[in-house]
Amino acid sequence: MKSKKKRPGRPRNRSSNVGLPPGTMVYIGDQKMDAVSVDIIDYNQSNFTELREASVERCGELAGAPGVTWINVNGIHDVGLIESLGGCLELHPLTLEDIVNTGQRPKTEEFPHYIYVVLKMISFNETTNQLATEHVSLILADNYVVSFQERRGDVFDSVRDRIRNSKGRLRSMKADYLAYSLMDAVVDHYFLAVERMGDRIEDLDDQILTDPHPNAMQEVHHLKRQILGMRKAVWPLREEIRVLEKCESGLIRPETKAFLRDLYDHTIQVIDMVETFRDILGGMHDTFLSNVSNRMNEIMKVLTIIATIFIPLTFIAGLYGMNFEHMPELKWAWGYYMALGVMLAVGIVMTVYFRKKKWL
Amino acid sequence: MKSKKKRPGRPRNRSSNVGLPPGTMVYIGDQKMDAVSVDIIDYNQSNFTELREASVERCGELAGAPGVTWINVNGIHDVGLIESLGGCLELHPLTLEDIVNTGQRPKTEEFPHYIYVVLKMISFNETTNQLATEHVSLILADNYVVSFQERRGDVFDSVRDRIRNSKGRLRSMKADYLAYSLMDAVVDHYFLAVERMGDRIEDLDDQILTDPHPNAMQEVHHLKRQILGMRKAVWPLREEIRVLEKCESGLIRPETKAFLRDLYDHTIQVIDMVETFRDILGGMHDTFLSNVSNRMNEIMKVLTIIATIFIPLTFIAGLYGMNFEHMPELKWAWGYYMALGVMLAVGIVMTVYFRKKKWL
Amino acid sequence: MKSKKKRPGRPRNRSSNVGLPPGTMVYIGDQKMDAVSVDIIDYNQSNFTELREASVERCGELAGAPGVTWINVNGIHDVGLIESLGGCLELHPLTLEDIVNTGQRPKTEEFPHYIYVVLKMISFNETTNQLATEHVSLILADNYVVSFQERRGDVFDSVRDRIRNSKGRLRSMKADYLAYSLMDAVVDHYFLAVERMGDRIEDLDDQILTDPHPNAMQEVHHLKRQILGMRKAVWPLREEIRVLEKCESGLIRPETKAFLRDLYDHTIQVIDMVETFRDILGGMHDTFLSNVSNRMNEIMKVLTIIATIFIPLTFIAGLYGMNFEHMPELKWAWGYYMALGVMLAVGIVMTVYFRKKKWL
Amino acid sequence: MKSKKKRPGRPRNRSSNVGLPPGTMVYIGDQKMDAVSVDIIDYNQSNFTELREASVERCGELAGAPGVTWINVNGIHDVGLIESLGGCLELHPLTLEDIVNTGQRPKTEEFPHYIYVVLKMISFNETTNQLATEHVSLILADNYVVSFQERRGDVFDSVRDRIRNSKGRLRSMKADYLAYSLMDAVVDHYFLAVERMGDRIEDLDDQILTDPHPNAMQEVHHLKRQILGMRKAVWPLREEIRVLEKCESGLIRPETKAFLRDLYDHTIQVIDMVETFRDILGGMHDTFLSNVSNRMNEIMKVLTIIATIFIPLTFIAGLYGMNFEHMPELKWAWGYYMALGVMLAVGIVMTVYFRKKKWL
Amino acid sequence: MKSKKKRPGRPRNRSSNVGLPPGTMVYIGDQKMDAVSVDIIDYNQSNFTELREASVERCGELAGAPGVTWINVNGIHDVGLIESLGGCLELHPLTLEDIVNTGQRPKTEEFPHYIYVVLKMISFNETTNQLATEHVSLILADNYVVSFQERRGDVFDSVRDRIRNSKGRLRSMKADYLAYSLMDAVVDHYFLAVERMGDRIEDLDDQILTDPHPNAMQEVHHLKRQILGMRKAVWPLREEIRVLEKCESGLIRPETKAFLRDLYDHTIQVIDMVETFRDILGGMHDTFLSNVSNRMNEIMKVLTIIATIFIPLTFIAGLYGMNFEHMPELKWAWGYYMALGVMLAVGIVMTVYFRKKKWL
Repeated sequence: MKSKKKRPGRPRNRSSNVGLPPGTMVYIGDQKMDAVSVDIIDYNQSNFTELREASVERCGELAGAPGVTWINVNGIHDVGLIESLGGCLELHPLTLEDIVNTGQRPKTEEFPHYIYVVLKMISFNETTNQLATEHVSLILADNYVVSFQERRGDVFDSVRDRIRNSKGRLRSMKADYLAYSLMDAVVDHYFLAVERMGDRIEDLDDQILTDPHPNAMQEVHHLKRQILGMRKAVWPLREEIRVLEKCESGLIRPETKAFLRDLYDHTIQVIDMVETFRDILGGMHDTFLSNVSNRMNEIMKVLTIIATIFIPLTFIAGLYGMNFEHMPELKWAWGYYMALGVMLAVGIVMTVYFRKKKWL
Repeated sequence: MKSKKKRPGRPRNRSSNVGLPPGTMVYIGDQKMDAVSVDIIDYNQSNFTELREASVERCGELAGAPGVTWINVNGIHDVGLIESLGGCLELHPLTLEDIVNTGQRPKTEEFPHYIYVVLKMISFNETTNQLATEHVSLILADNYVVSFQERRGDVFDSVRDRIRNSKGRLRSMKADYLAYSLMDAVVDHYFLAVERMGDRIEDLDDQILTDPHPNAMQEVHHLKRQILGMRKAVWPLREEIRVLEKCESGLIRPETKAFLRDLYDHTIQVIDMVETFRDILGGMHDTFLSNVSNRMNEIMKVLTIIATIFIPLTFIAGLYGMNFEHMPELKWAWGYYMALGVMLAVGIVMTVYFRKKKWL
Repeated sequence: MKSKKKRPGRPRNRSSNVGLPPGTMVYIGDQKMDAVSVDIIDYNQSNFTELREASVERCGELAGAPGVTWINVNGIHDVGLIESLGGCLELHPLTLEDIVNTGQRPKTEEFPHYIYVVLKMISFNETTNQLATEHVSLILADNYVVSFQERRGDVFDSVRDRIRNSKGRLRSMKADYLAYSLMDAVVDHYFLAVERMGDRIEDLDDQILTDPHPNAMQEVHHLKRQILGMRKAVWPLREEIRVLEKCESGLIRPETKAFLRDLYDHTIQVIDMVETFRDILGGMHDTFLSNVSNRMNEIMKVLTIIATIFIPLTFIAGLYGMNFEHMPELKWAWGYYMALGVMLAVGIVMTVYFRKKKWL
Repeated sequence: MKSKKKRPGRPRNRSSNVGLPPGTMVYIGDQKMDAVSVDIIDYNQSNFTELREASVERCGELAGAPGVTWINVNGIHDVGLIESLGGCLELHPLTLEDIVNTGQRPKTEEFPHYIYVVLKMISFNETTNQLATEHVSLILADNYVVSFQERRGDVFDSVRDRIRNSKGRLRSMKADYLAYSLMDAVVDHYFLAVERMGDRIEDLDDQILTDPHPNAMQEVHHLKRQILGMRKAVWPLREEIRVLEKCESGLIRPETKAFLRDLYDHTIQVIDMVETFRDILGGMHDTFLSNVSNRMNEIMKVLTIIATIFIPLTFIAGLYGMNFEHMPELKWAWGYYMALGVMLAVGIVMTVYFRKKKWL
Repeated sequence: MKSKKKRPGRPRNRSSNVGLPPGTMVYIGDQKMDAVSVDIIDYNQSNFTELREASVERCGELAGAPGVTWINVNGIHDVGLIESLGGCLELHPLTLEDIVNTGQRPKTEEFPHYIYVVLKMISFNETTNQLATEHVSLILADNYVVSFQERRGDVFDSVRDRIRNSKGRLRSMKADYLAYSLMDAVVDHYFLAVERMGDRIEDLDDQILTDPHPNAMQEVHHLKRQILGMRKAVWPLREEIRVLEKCESGLIRPETKAFLRDLYDHTIQVIDMVETFRDILGGMHDTFLSNVSNRMNEIMKVLTIIATIFIPLTFIAGLYGMNFEHMPELKWAWGYYMALGVMLAVGIVMTVYFRKKKWL
């Protein structure tokens, strides 16, 4: 029940890994029923071939052939399939462990014949205000790229379309540009998530100024944690791209580096926006607290003033309610009206005084 | 409606870019109706020519000719014009993307035959207390400078005048000094914005000390966000100028570097002022809160004391309002006056006590 | 009594060391009665020998022989035994001092013929919410590893099993891989501790939202201190592994370094989780305070409103309780009902007003 | 009126500079009426000459002659004089701009034949609690030093005396030692300002503990801003002296560098004191707030308890003030005394209860 | 009177130094009456000589002779004696200035023939909760060490004993090991001070949880300042030892460097403990405030509830105290008991309601 709530940045059941030899692949994400499928697109400047539900052997063949091969694996919970793919492409056991470890933070690691990149895909659900992160791995080798997603998604569709339609310079570039394009697609989706989150924050900001309800505060806390999760995905990415740009193995060609710098700029922009939201959320906490205490103070002040005005009046009434035998005022014909007059005068004087003091 | 409010640092509709190939130019600023116009000033030590509404071809010709050429583009929403200018001057597609991307943060990027500089022009509207930032790009090549503004403005007028009137050393220097002069003009305008903001902050400070109204607090929050926007424009500039100064391509001549150091100092001065304002605004929050709670406490204290003085008196009145048949005091001739006297005594004793305790 | 409480990060009786020459071994942990025992496992790819309660001389012999020797010392309070082992293996006096100094923070130190690594084992007791840290030392020499634990534990059992069953690549690797495996086992147990702590924090978070009791706050403070203790164990580890990876003595073989990088990633993951918990705990403090003051304010508001509604009514009652002889209303047949009606009207008007103002 | 208040770190009318070519000298300090005067001291180990109100030409002559020449310019608002002096000594236009720009922050800049140092002189006025900063520039060339002050002051008198009386090693050293001595004199005066400020802070601390008046809080805020101004003068100085010490041009002789390190230590000491004051002032804010709310709470508690004790008593009195015909107690002979007794008992029980609960 | 209070980190009368030439020795500590005495221990592996109240000439002789000479100066207020010692050992004037300047922060400075080390001795007085710092200087030359203390103390006794009794390796090592031993003795005493402070903090923590009295808060503030003073002594030490370890002059022998690394570790341990205390004290402030406001809120809540229950009852009593002629209830035989019953019912209903709402 309770444990169904997911906290960003908290891998589930990571402890199931304890005691296993390093390099053991343990999928620690949510259990999934979908079959894992492998799609391949193989292209060069003039042709392209597309294969759905390809076999691991076919992957090995195409990866070895000339032309850029993009192997896209949808789903990482089939440990056996990923292991055989890893064997076929000669991936290091630790790379395989990281591919299925959804708790792995973004990083770039260079191996002799490939570069391994971990990314986080991010989407923001506007109805639940929940940030969903998905673990994405990229393997960039000399003439192929392997991408691993947690589930079949539409983030890479734009890249697929550009290959199919020969749009942009993608078809005329090598595997490194393909890897860059995939990373760029992921970062582009960050903007979507950040903007949606921004809209929610703006709404919340208006709400807090007009009607500071405790629920709004809980939502601020909730969004703060979402922002924390976002930062954890985006901040390491910055360093990661820097590492790729500085990479001296021939896997990243010089003409691609300008594009990596551009991607770096986009990442900084996302970080800037995320940090701005963080500042704004931090400020909203203060605004909320001072608004609430302001309202409360105003209420208490008004109520206390009402009580304060009536207390002396009640005293006067009590005074003439005393039962002494010798109270001359009680006999006066106009005594009652005088008493009423005194009360009215006291009430007016106090009200005027409080108003002059700007208490009312 | 709501979405008309602009938040500093938040590009609008950046997500419209998602899925497009990198290097695609998408103007994401406010939609504008004005035609984009290109002005050219070509000068050397002895002559100068000025051209308004020049064609792209003319730009290419003059840029290639000896003499320093300053091409000023007013407006960046005409993507086609900027693309053809970029083609004519052989600018990198990513540079063109950044020129029209108003969300791009300040940066300096070196390309083989030019340096690309992004700046933010800042102005502070004193009536709305709103900071307006404008995206400015500079291209510095060997003998020409291209500047891109979001709209025709008066910031560069002083530079234009100095060229026309041969004032200062501008006419006798090369393109790098022109680029420096343009950056210097932008930074000079920062001082104007910062000082105006400073005046507003001083007014607010006085207001908070004398009459702490919640609106003042909202303005403090508002100004804090403006300051955040300001910082985002100014902080990267510092790094940027440092990079230019250290730049080893021959595009920045040694004699210009002393001026860049001077510009660097000015930037630091702006940053200092901005940070001082930030500290002051942060302190104002505290001052406001303690002033408000002070006032509130004072009010509550006075009211509670009034109530506390009257409550025992009302009790005494109630005592003699009891209807017991055998209450000897009620029969006494001076009973009423004694009761009044006791009440007066109790009231005076309590007032004196509270005063002695410094509660009143 | 009081001194039985242990504070994380605070060595006990460290001052008993004052005035002793450096290199003097002083065990400053809790006094223990258990005998210190030494277990040895000696293995190569084909064979392995296991020895329980081995003598120091046997350690020296096996350490000198080919094949990887793992000497595991359970208990560090027998200073004499550790000294003779140190003499036999030619350890530096300062290393011996650090092995028994449970206050020593994690560090890596290179000596001519061995590397000395200090770690902290961590376990989290869910019933007492107490973090227990244990001081672990590793000596990595060319073909042996010595591990020192404060007490016999089960953390290294998984490594032992892997040696016995030839699981994974452990048996085919050298002493450096064994040392890595031991460190990996320790870090794997961090995940256990962190997850248990995380569960406790989640429970606490729910509790604070639904029923903010002061005890919950004290537990938050308590957990904050446990987190501080955790950080002190984990943060230096990061630097430590970095040092090992960069180590240029031949003791760490190149093929082991990829595994150290993997271990480094795991450490970063633990740090990330710990920092996330810290943020969450920090936020819980704020949530608690605002929840408590919210509840309190709500109560005070309702009570004050009740009082405010009754005070004018009581005044009216007091008015007609006055004993003036000439009060025409008192004679009216319907006077009493009119008074009741006026009171009812005043009560309703005030309630409606407060409701409209959203005070009720 | 209002604009007369000076904020530390905020140059006045800096915006008057906007649009002017760089290197244009604009004095932005307060307008001054005093004439600018130039004093010269020329000395070597055996002789010294002193000249008051010297002409610019004389400066040029002496600066060129052997022997150390110290040109002291009192006042920087006479832009013409400084420009002709700059021309005579071949100072860079940007140096001249910085000499008269009182908003320039401390820095060290190396030029081919001289080093330019900007300092801030600081004095603390104990009656107004106002920090006054003065802009000081030093030009250190091979055998002369030029110092610029905003007005004739006594800070450099000790240096003058040491030259006149051949005290210390000043007369036997070169121009770099003179420059060091002038900087040392400025830093020595920092101690005076800091100690005076420290006395004020200590007084304030006592006052806040004994009688927390809102005015004290405003003074704390005021002093915090003064400390901000102080930091801005002192922090960059640290870096500045480091740069001078590392300076590789022959202008700083090796024997002077030990003295610069000493000056560096003094600067660190000033910074330490300033930071300590900052911490203390920050803590005073907390102390003040908790003291004030403590006092207020105590008052409210006592008053509420008084009210709470009387409210049930008043209720009892009201009970027997009811006019029912059949109230047997009213007929009892001892009814009145019993009622009084019950009231007394209730009052005593409540007081005892509150005392036991430690509420009173 | 007031000025007798000492603030940590605040040198007294430092301003008396203003205007004096650099290198002038001014003792700025408390005025002392004790005579300054010089003790010498001269030793090698086989012999040792001890001299009390030695003359400066004897110091010079022994310092020049082979064998390690330790000159310990008790008291630094006799400026003349230190100057003549400095002349005899050829110390730099700035070193002498720093030896008597008790405001000098810890640092290490290398001179051609000696290394100068400044340390702070720290002791914590448990009755006054006051941290006392003492200025300690060490001069390490090739075969002698000079130590300067503010007064004769027992910190170095353990080192003296080890020389006398040939304990440890001290007698067989050179002057650098002696200097290390003295620094080690100082750092060992830090543990004493820190542990005493820790005990006090633990007591305070218990007190704040059980009985949050304002005095406890003032003590927390007081201890915070003591911690500040402690940090100022310990933090620079870390850097200092690092510098000594990296020192490339032959004065520090390689075999001593392992011991310096050990000392470095101890310093880190002290820093860790100090920082932990700082965190704990910071948390105590929050705990105190929330405890106090909790208690206050509880009191106010209970009192307000009592008042709220009685106010409607008093109103009912007032109702039947009205003097209308036609009030049928007054005539009813059971009217009085009915009124009492209604009051009881209202009281019970309200109490139950408040209890159900968990307000009581």
